[in-house]
Amino acid sequence: MSDPTYTPPKIWTYDDENGGQFASINRPTAGARFEKELPRGKHPFQLYSLGTPNGQKVTIMFEELLAKGFSDAEYDAFLIRILDLEQFGSGFVDINPNSKIPALLDTTTDPETRVFESGSILLYLAEKFGAFIPQDHAGRTECLNWLFWQMGSAPFLGGGFGHFYTYAPERYEYPINRFTMEVKRQLDVLDKQLEKHQYICGDDYTIADMAIWPWYGGVASGAVYNAAEFLQTHEYKNLMRWTEEVGSRTAVKRGRMVNRVFGEPHEQLLERHDASDFDTKTQDKM
Amino acid sequence: MSDPTYTPPKIWTYDDENGGQFASINRPTAGARFEKELPRGKHPFQLYSLGTPNGQKVTIMFEELLAKGFSDAEYDAFLIRILDLEQFGSGFVDINPNSKIPALLDTTTDPETRVFESGSILLYLAEKFGAFIPQDHAGRTECLNWLFWQMGSAPFLGGGFGHFYTYAPERYEYPINRFTMEVKRQLDVLDKQLEKHQYICGDDYTIADMAIWPWYGGVASGAVYNAAEFLQTHEYKNLMRWTEEVGSRTAVKRGRMVNRVFGEPHEQLLERHDASDFDTKTQDKM
Repeated sequence: MSDPTYTPPKIWTYDDENGGQFASINRPTAGARFEKELPRGKHPFQLYSLGTPNGQKVTIMFEELLAKGFSDAEYDAFLIRILDLEQFGSGFVDINPNSKIPALLDTTTDPETRVFESGSILLYLAEKFGAFIPQDHAGRTECLNWLFWQMGSAPFLGGGFGHFYTYAPERYEYPINRFTMEVKRQLDVLDKQLEKHQYICGDDYTIADMAIWPWYGGVASGAVYNAAEFLQTHEYKNLMRWTEEVGSRTAVKRGRMVNRVFGEPHEQLLERHDASDFDTKTQDKM
Repeated sequence: MSDPTYTPPKIWTYDDENGGQFASINRPTAGARFEKELPRGKHPFQLYSLGTPNGQKVTIMFEELLAKGFSDAEYDAFLIRILDLEQFGSGFVDINPNSKIPALLDTTTDPETRVFESGSILLYLAEKFGAFIPQDHAGRTECLNWLFWQMGSAPFLGGGFGHFYTYAPERYEYPINRFTMEVKRQLDVLDKQLEKHQYICGDDYTIADMAIWPWYGGVASGAVYNAAEFLQTHEYKNLMRWTEEVGSRTAVKRGRMVNRVFGEPHEQLLERHDASDFDTKTQDKM
């Protein structure tokens, strides 16, 4: 960074050396790269995902709905291995033209309904089941404020901080400083909110918590990017309190395991097709 | 970038030289920096904003609602000069603890309702007036998919591409390549969607169009970041067709003018408190 000496060309051209660790994934074009149908299970909801923070939001929501007794929220969670480029198969692109996990198919409607973007999926399920979103006007609005806050903020954490701190081929000082400052500001926004409220938008645990916890709880605890010391996350005491509280929920522990391809074997449930799938994993662990 | 030679410290510390052009704005902390009440106008909705793409989304929505005959959608648009740090005043932070424009106060509810995040504001107004969002299940879901898509994607365009291509103190090759590739991919996602549909989520013009147009239409036309040649946006023919079509709407032209602090004088309406405010600006221009 001490010697940038770079002048962008008049017209940018694609060089497949540009992508860093994910060069094989990233291209400047969209759409299906190959024909492939998606598998189907037996449940009302078909989820195609991976256990990243964005994927966890949705599996946590399903497990919370099931824990609350909504048996109609049964789901099949199929694994989409993004490093194997499975998100570029035609079946996946039909559900999410943006080729990102998570992607959901609701088979209970006629025609079936595609839902993509994790925030859209959370809102869809909350409205479908009338759960985890306040029913009063003020509460609902505040919940949506924070749900949208997460969607617009986390790219600075994931696509910005996480990329340059962890994934980029080299460590560049300016981008790391830029995104670290923003992430710390975001952590402080949450810490101040959680100083006044038990949960993100008030007294109730909602989809705003489910959206924010996998990213910001993950960073706070060190589970995401292993940057807790770098960011001094222990200073955000209210955020830490909430991170632990949400993380202790059984449904959150279950949701985190689904479609997870890293960590210890007992933390991983590569695909989830039945509540009993957790049994062998969790008997001594939860 | 040819010589990164940077090792991040164990613990990041704040250095106010880090912020580039916006060093005075950006800090790693949140919350009000000074006490200041916000002004109030006479209309049901009080908007505190600036004519950036995120601000334009909301002023376009208000102008569309008014053009459709919803006289209850009258609004006062106050200017928040972010370079003067007005978003850190206590009154603004009370409405948006994230200190970003746009921020909206609905004075027609008891108590008054704060709405922040441009996507949340668009959805709030669409639901309040029952307009610009499909009423059928499939249409509503697809509209929300794309509304959330915009919220999660545009940070790569604004906070990523725009920052490193335009605002960063120097041009760094790796970040420019990274974010340019992603922006071109996003433009291609939109182009393919608009090949199949007149508007973003089907035959109807919705809040998804209003969310996406200020950013992606702006980049396509060159109005945002002046990067149309660099990105070769003319190749996205369906996106260009839609960019022009949406941009020709009277309400969009009006919405773009509100709270705008750059461009030609006739393009700017610094504050908007009455429909007649446009008259002197637009008599020969629209």
